[in-house]
Amino acid sequence: MRIAMAQLNPIVGDIAGNTQNILHAIARAKDQGAGLVIFSELAVIGYPPRDLLLKPVVLEQMAAAVDHISRQCVGITALVGFVEQNTAAVGRTLRNAAAFLRDGAIVAKGYKSLLPTYDVFDETRYFEPAPQLQIVPFENHKIGISICEDLWNDEQVVARQLYPVNPVARMAEAGADMLVNLSASPYVMGKNTFRRKLIAHQAQRWKLPVVYVNQVGANDELIFDGNSMAVDANGRMLAQAKDFQEDIVTFDLPARDTSQELLEPRQGMESLHAALVMGLRDYAEKCGFAKVVLGLSGGIDSAVVAAIAVEALGRESVLGVALPSRYSSEQSLIDARQLAAALAIKLDVIPIEEVHHAMEHTLEGLFKGTQPGLAEENIQARLRGNILMALSNKFGYLLLTTGNKSEIATGYCTLYGDMCGGLAVISDVPKTMVYPLAHEINRQWVKAGRQAPIPESSLKKAPSADLRPNQTDQDSLPPYSVLDAILERYVELEQSAQNIVAAGFDELTVRRVIQMVDSNEYKRKQMPPGLKVTSRAFGFGRRMPIAQRYRPLVIG
Amino acid sequence: MRIAMAQLNPIVGDIAGNTQNILHAIARAKDQGAGLVIFSELAVIGYPPRDLLLKPVVLEQMAAAVDHISRQCVGITALVGFVEQNTAAVGRTLRNAAAFLRDGAIVAKGYKSLLPTYDVFDETRYFEPAPQLQIVPFENHKIGISICEDLWNDEQVVARQLYPVNPVARMAEAGADMLVNLSASPYVMGKNTFRRKLIAHQAQRWKLPVVYVNQVGANDELIFDGNSMAVDANGRMLAQAKDFQEDIVTFDLPARDTSQELLEPRQGMESLHAALVMGLRDYAEKCGFAKVVLGLSGGIDSAVVAAIAVEALGRESVLGVALPSRYSSEQSLIDARQLAAALAIKLDVIPIEEVHHAMEHTLEGLFKGTQPGLAEENIQARLRGNILMALSNKFGYLLLTTGNKSEIATGYCTLYGDMCGGLAVISDVPKTMVYPLAHEINRQWVKAGRQAPIPESSLKKAPSADLRPNQTDQDSLPPYSVLDAILERYVELEQSAQNIVAAGFDELTVRRVIQMVDSNEYKRKQMPPGLKVTSRAFGFGRRMPIAQRYRPLVIG
Repeated sequence: MRIAMAQLNPIVGDIAGNTQNILHAIARAKDQGAGLVIFSELAVIGYPPRDLLLKPVVLEQMAAAVDHISRQCVGITALVGFVEQNTAAVGRTLRNAAAFLRDGAIVAKGYKSLLPTYDVFDETRYFEPAPQLQIVPFENHKIGISICEDLWNDEQVVARQLYPVNPVARMAEAGADMLVNLSASPYVMGKNTFRRKLIAHQAQRWKLPVVYVNQVGANDELIFDGNSMAVDANGRMLAQAKDFQEDIVTFDLPARDTSQELLEPRQGMESLHAALVMGLRDYAEKCGFAKVVLGLSGGIDSAVVAAIAVEALGRESVLGVALPSRYSSEQSLIDARQLAAALAIKLDVIPIEEVHHAMEHTLEGLFKGTQPGLAEENIQARLRGNILMALSNKFGYLLLTTGNKSEIATGYCTLYGDMCGGLAVISDVPKTMVYPLAHEINRQWVKAGRQAPIPESSLKKAPSADLRPNQTDQDSLPPYSVLDAILERYVELEQSAQNIVAAGFDELTVRRVIQMVDSNEYKRKQMPPGLKVTSRAFGFGRRMPIAQRYRPLVIG
Repeated sequence: MRIAMAQLNPIVGDIAGNTQNILHAIARAKDQGAGLVIFSELAVIGYPPRDLLLKPVVLEQMAAAVDHISRQCVGITALVGFVEQNTAAVGRTLRNAAAFLRDGAIVAKGYKSLLPTYDVFDETRYFEPAPQLQIVPFENHKIGISICEDLWNDEQVVARQLYPVNPVARMAEAGADMLVNLSASPYVMGKNTFRRKLIAHQAQRWKLPVVYVNQVGANDELIFDGNSMAVDANGRMLAQAKDFQEDIVTFDLPARDTSQELLEPRQGMESLHAALVMGLRDYAEKCGFAKVVLGLSGGIDSAVVAAIAVEALGRESVLGVALPSRYSSEQSLIDARQLAAALAIKLDVIPIEEVHHAMEHTLEGLFKGTQPGLAEENIQARLRGNILMALSNKFGYLLLTTGNKSEIATGYCTLYGDMCGGLAVISDVPKTMVYPLAHEINRQWVKAGRQAPIPESSLKKAPSADLRPNQTDQDSLPPYSVLDAILERYVELEQSAQNIVAAGFDELTVRRVIQMVDSNEYKRKQMPPGLKVTSRAFGFGRRMPIAQRYRPLVIG
């Protein structure tokens, strides 16, 4: 039996477009001799569809699309993920479904059993779990259908089983001789290595081949890396799809040739870089933007985002804007110019002195007798935001924000100022990781025979917001190496102040950092979507109250 | 037996403060002769605690608080809502719990069975359902413990049962002779009437008294109206707590006096008004702001928000700012002044001409040869936002946004402009409802012997953004009566374009409105929290993808 894994990049909600893409993949799989082509989770609508699922018309369209696809399945069977109405009288109204389609009919159906409802996942908001497991006879096989999370609740793999059942174990015990998993598993650095181990483990534990088809492409905050794969009953790789791009891969079961070379999916900074490039490209394209604009401060964050934008959309589609103020160092503008030249992008230089002066004059009476401080600094950042948004509105650019995770965590950024934009490209990349990412970008450009785009000066100089004379980030923040270590413990690992201090960090610094994180939820509430690359990103997967008074105190 | 209902206003996460408030209520209940005092759902941490629950130290603090409270329960028993670790080896790590506390011990415990995960609710993100129902012997009663949603899954009441069990039915059948419900049921216009019917129905159906203790106070988007109540086995009211304020009410079971007068909770505009006043006050106070600032355009929206702010915080705590531009009509400033005078608040007038001119000059070269349009209009709104935020930053005001639901739905508002602010007070009030709300405010002020604050002119004139000469809202939008009717169908009822057209609306208008709603998710993603008063508000309870291409088309 020849099987195709169709790793496609759907646009969320674009049922008509996704259906066309699915039909093309079916035709290609058929051309390649496949008898079965397998798509990813919810392939018809794209993952995650969120509250589009509350629109009855969307469900009707999805049913029509599945019917339409089934009529094109002649000489080949397609296993397609979609959402179905729950026909039971009681319970949530929907199911996360997968159907075998052939000759105008739904030949067999399976449903998702384990519905992730944590981090960025909200599946029990919509779905009822599978009423029973589904083992589908296909040619000489008995295929156990599972969807994404169904594969993960293995007591030998996870620290805690969130669900009382293990659908894989049940299907193996019930006689499945092959396991298929339709997935939409978002990218997190290092996760693909874990996934490969998990899939090999399942194959070896249950002694059956596993076919894992993952979504690819980015949707809002979530980046799906693809990396679909099939392994035999010994966990040996039979076929692999590429990372960060659409791919259709066929393989034979039993394998004709097990001597093939393994693809090595990208790791570390290389994978982070590829993820962000795809994340930016997909967000822009799926929102209908052909070009982007961003402010170039001369610092490393905007340099990295500019390089990623050029890689994602091409240099003609990127406009850099330098917005020098009276406090900007000369070096800032030199670095911005050098970056723009190396990236070969257009650079507009728009000094903000005139509007800055006019704003000061406008507020003079009201501010008389006060000391210059944050209010005055924020004014400049907001005037820059206003100018960049004016360019966005006038010429149709998507404005990118360039803040990193460390800044956003501590609120070291100006709401309606440098936080203006449609996408926060590196909002989940801590400052200490921006540097190796920048080096990786430079390395790749040099390897491709081009000039390293990110200026040495941006890599070397002390970070500064340039909002008052001789300002540096370290006037307001602990050294980034210390800050990021504390933030990882507090934000990603949910450790308490006490735990972090016990690990050897200075107590006053820890308290100060935590206070900054907690008191800036209101800013993050209003930030644009940011590309998630760590296990816990600010955004949809981290839901903190704003009007709250959590204090790390023991009562009594 | 004498029972006290303690309807308190917790601050989310403030375990120490909430515990003190609970202890005061216990002391008061004891003074009033109660043997049992009942608190609302999650009273120790406040509802909704969201991802604060992912912090292990919060769980430890909560356990310590429950222990501390139990030691103060001498001569009285307290039934208190909190969150507990799930001690089972498998499943989500927490439970939504209620404990009978007395003499330093947890005498009995119950858990929530039905975990709402829709709209603004995320409970399966955190909790496992109750492993079994809990009927607790207390004096001569057998009390069935239920928590909020547990009361609602009654096939005689709801259109669809979301859950396969009805815990109330089970407890009644298992011999409970009294039902207690600890609740955190958010305000929606008209919901209290439904709640009263539901509770009377449960009492009559199962022939047992029902004691319903609801949270009061606002937390971020959610307003809890209180309206706690106890009914006898015939559904007759035994005791009622006030709406929109803390209250402790005692009653005897069996009732000594059933001739008492019924409170009539506020309805319609009166209740909406009370809800918004409490919503604004609590958000400001719980975020630590003593005063607010807002732009006064002379229009009805900002007038209504200003009046609500004065009612919530007092006139000394409210600063109005008029920000006239070259396009502002004279009447706009006259109306703003009249409003400020009637409210007796300070009004600063800050013309934006100088900064507007400077910004035009700054962008002149880049904008040469283009037609003035949205970009130029947004610049003015953003300069106003910049000035208001400068005042906020400099003097510590909470900036209020004044956009209504119709504007926010259609994107007829400027991101980083008039959308700047910490709280969107009327973001869930459609424009056609702003008028009756304004009349209600004027009526109440007149009734209290004061001048009606909202100027006749603001109530009568055609709404305008004043961003170009002679602009009115109806240049860009359908008449509000039509717009709001379409929006209600599309946003609140999730009807399709086809359905709405079939109901008699003009097809082009319907398509245009839907297109405006769908293409402005990116703005709403970045809006401040808005007070929820309808069944479907923009914000946490409506989760739409941004990079999506949902189109109301049938494929095939």
